[in-house]
Amino acid sequence: MSLIRKHLLGLEGVEKDELNHIIQTATSFKEVLSRPFPKVPTLRGKTIVNLFFEASTRTRFSFELAEKRLSADTLNFSVSASAVKKGESLRDTAQNIEAMKVDMVVIRHAAAGAPHFLANCIKGSVINAGDGCHEHPTQALLDMMTLLEKFGDLQGLRVAIIGDVLHSRVARSNVYGLTKMGAEVALCGPSPLIPIRADQWPVKIMNNVDDAIFWADVLMVLRIQMERQQANFFPSLREYHNYFGITVDRLNRARKTLTIMHPGPINRGIELDSELADSEHSLILDQVTNGVAVRMAVLYLLSGEK
Amino acid sequence: MSLIRKHLLGLEGVEKDELNHIIQTATSFKEVLSRPFPKVPTLRGKTIVNLFFEASTRTRFSFELAEKRLSADTLNFSVSASAVKKGESLRDTAQNIEAMKVDMVVIRHAAAGAPHFLANCIKGSVINAGDGCHEHPTQALLDMMTLLEKFGDLQGLRVAIIGDVLHSRVARSNVYGLTKMGAEVALCGPSPLIPIRADQWPVKIMNNVDDAIFWADVLMVLRIQMERQQANFFPSLREYHNYFGITVDRLNRARKTLTIMHPGPINRGIELDSELADSEHSLILDQVTNGVAVRMAVLYLLSGEK
Amino acid sequence: MSLIRKHLLGLEGVEKDELNHIIQTATSFKEVLSRPFPKVPTLRGKTIVNLFFEASTRTRFSFELAEKRLSADTLNFSVSASAVKKGESLRDTAQNIEAMKVDMVVIRHAAAGAPHFLANCIKGSVINAGDGCHEHPTQALLDMMTLLEKFGDLQGLRVAIIGDVLHSRVARSNVYGLTKMGAEVALCGPSPLIPIRADQWPVKIMNNVDDAIFWADVLMVLRIQMERQQANFFPSLREYHNYFGITVDRLNRARKTLTIMHPGPINRGIELDSELADSEHSLILDQVTNGVAVRMAVLYLLSGEK
Repeated sequence: MSLIRKHLLGLEGVEKDELNHIIQTATSFKEVLSRPFPKVPTLRGKTIVNLFFEASTRTRFSFELAEKRLSADTLNFSVSASAVKKGESLRDTAQNIEAMKVDMVVIRHAAAGAPHFLANCIKGSVINAGDGCHEHPTQALLDMMTLLEKFGDLQGLRVAIIGDVLHSRVARSNVYGLTKMGAEVALCGPSPLIPIRADQWPVKIMNNVDDAIFWADVLMVLRIQMERQQANFFPSLREYHNYFGITVDRLNRARKTLTIMHPGPINRGIELDSELADSEHSLILDQVTNGVAVRMAVLYLLSGEK
Repeated sequence: MSLIRKHLLGLEGVEKDELNHIIQTATSFKEVLSRPFPKVPTLRGKTIVNLFFEASTRTRFSFELAEKRLSADTLNFSVSASAVKKGESLRDTAQNIEAMKVDMVVIRHAAAGAPHFLANCIKGSVINAGDGCHEHPTQALLDMMTLLEKFGDLQGLRVAIIGDVLHSRVARSNVYGLTKMGAEVALCGPSPLIPIRADQWPVKIMNNVDDAIFWADVLMVLRIQMERQQANFFPSLREYHNYFGITVDRLNRARKTLTIMHPGPINRGIELDSELADSEHSLILDQVTNGVAVRMAVLYLLSGEK
Repeated sequence: MSLIRKHLLGLEGVEKDELNHIIQTATSFKEVLSRPFPKVPTLRGKTIVNLFFEASTRTRFSFELAEKRLSADTLNFSVSASAVKKGESLRDTAQNIEAMKVDMVVIRHAAAGAPHFLANCIKGSVINAGDGCHEHPTQALLDMMTLLEKFGDLQGLRVAIIGDVLHSRVARSNVYGLTKMGAEVALCGPSPLIPIRADQWPVKIMNNVDDAIFWADVLMVLRIQMERQQANFFPSLREYHNYFGITVDRLNRARKTLTIMHPGPINRGIELDSELADSEHSLILDQVTNGVAVRMAVLYLLSGEK
């Protein structure tokens, strides 16, 4: 069974059945990845372009691995060597790729909506690998898959997303996905880093991290994206760490064992203590492993192959 | 039947039979590209290096796709990560690649003649993917293929090449190819951007774009290469647009329906109106599609494979 | 027979039997490379990541070719597009790659010891492709293979390593390897560029290049790494050339025919005359050819495949 949709641009509006279907497919692919020969011929002869307009290692590697394990041919676009520098529009880049008969495009772009724009220009499928401060749907899918592996069911699970929610496409996609799956979601961070319209989302908003810890089963700790901070949203990193850093001390004081997640790359000692990132309650490396399986599932399901 | 030549360094001196043979082979490969499984095993086990000393997306993608659809193994060289920075000569780079037993090299270089130099250093085949202001033979081949698809025959077809001819390797290769194929060619642009020796080429030279429009069946609009302009060849982009821009107004005044081509990337609204680039008379995206087929044909024919 | 070791981090402590075993395996692979179809399916389904934290063309190409000729899937990491810029630690990068179930990692890094650190973090095999001023084991292996091809046996062969020994990982790996293989090794260069502890190595130290020429059978000429010189180790390149450059004149005066090696890229006319680099006594291009075979051997032997 393939997906009815043609593109994966975000999790907004994606229903629970569809989320479950993608995650179940990913679970089958995870089994493939553990075999001595971890490849399937599913996408042999298909060409996939990875259009990364923003620097990325982990997400690009994860997609490229997924593509290679499905036996697709891959082309990598790095913005530094591209016609973008020559002033070409995204639409022209897209139409050119289309004219070359490419089957699927994975795009990361600094502008929210770029993947949606691309999806209108080309016949092939488009997968959003992160657009500005908007969505990063495969990240949320891998987060949900990882939580399902641990908890079996997300109904009623309490997930607190901690940190710079404003700039986080990971947070946005998880709010859509987790609430559809029945989880309760809280957002917690410095007020300037909580989106103004978040009060219209089906989430709790907390300004005190100790309250969030008291409430939550799972802490999804966001990265402080130094490279995205154009204004001063908090006084200093030390200040941020003191008020919102997830530390061993803080958890000890709360006398709670909480599951820890982080989309990476981690700023150890800023938003998360190193000891917690590496503890037995951390799912961080499971998230990475599941990322490849989830991306295989999305590529496979959108391709319409059997 | 393979080609007698070993390298494709330019179209100067390439005869009509050979041009037709390459384009006919490309037409067969175009059929392959439309299949559900658009690959052939022709170059399995061959290694091709894409040596791009200048930034490029579209040409590199087109070659890389052609290589992958012929099942070759590809290595990509980007100048930013290379020994060139460490002061290595092109000859040493070439000999090293040769010593690694590479079968073919696709090279783009800012220096005219670099591919010819390379062809003297190595045993493998060399394909010029653009050398300075000299030649870009696969671009002219795909242009001719696209015109043949539309017009059936190039004999007597009037092609006006508009813009910065001086810096255009596309123009130079097309002058050689189109005239060999029996087309009539005119060059039209600001005087400083028409090469002094162009009066020795078998072409008309026009300084007024309306004359060119009146005369031509096809407009091949060149890109204003901002990144290549070291001197001031025209007062401003606005001035260029006013005197040489191909606009809807200008074509309406001429009451002519002209076929529009452009090698890309387009500066929309400078050398060409957006509406014309996207009109039914534009062959721009056909050019891109045919590019992959032409490059497959060239790689195949030079390889000597059956 | 595979290797007992799991990683190849350096040649320090590698025994003669093991060196011979790797080189013999490389010799078999060299025969594969001369076939019309120069590939073997040995590492089909294996994924190898090339983590190059320093710019490199020749070594990366050589590894990537070796990987493709063994039919492995490859992922290329270039530091410019990476999370390193976002402040991620090497350990986190490593653990992420590990979590994506990568089989082997080839790493080049400016910090001595980085590959050893990586080997402690991940389950896959690690191959050192050059770490700071420490080791570059595959380079020394290909140097020894090339000498064995010419001389049959290294016992008693006199190899003088000339130039910037201090910053040379090539020199260090060759000292370990060549002496284990029974060769006699001399180091010759400006005093500030000979490591202080070199007097504890089983080598001769010479400050006069004419003495080295008089003594040696083979000159292994090192590259003056302009990009690595942070202090002024010698007055000027001209001075260096006058006192330590290997020139036709100098060899003529010594009335000796010496075998010339160089790890590349060559600064022609600085550490080595162009004429000597290209002479019949130069093994420089044989070194490059053998590099691919040696890397195939190392990847194959570490993989544990049959």
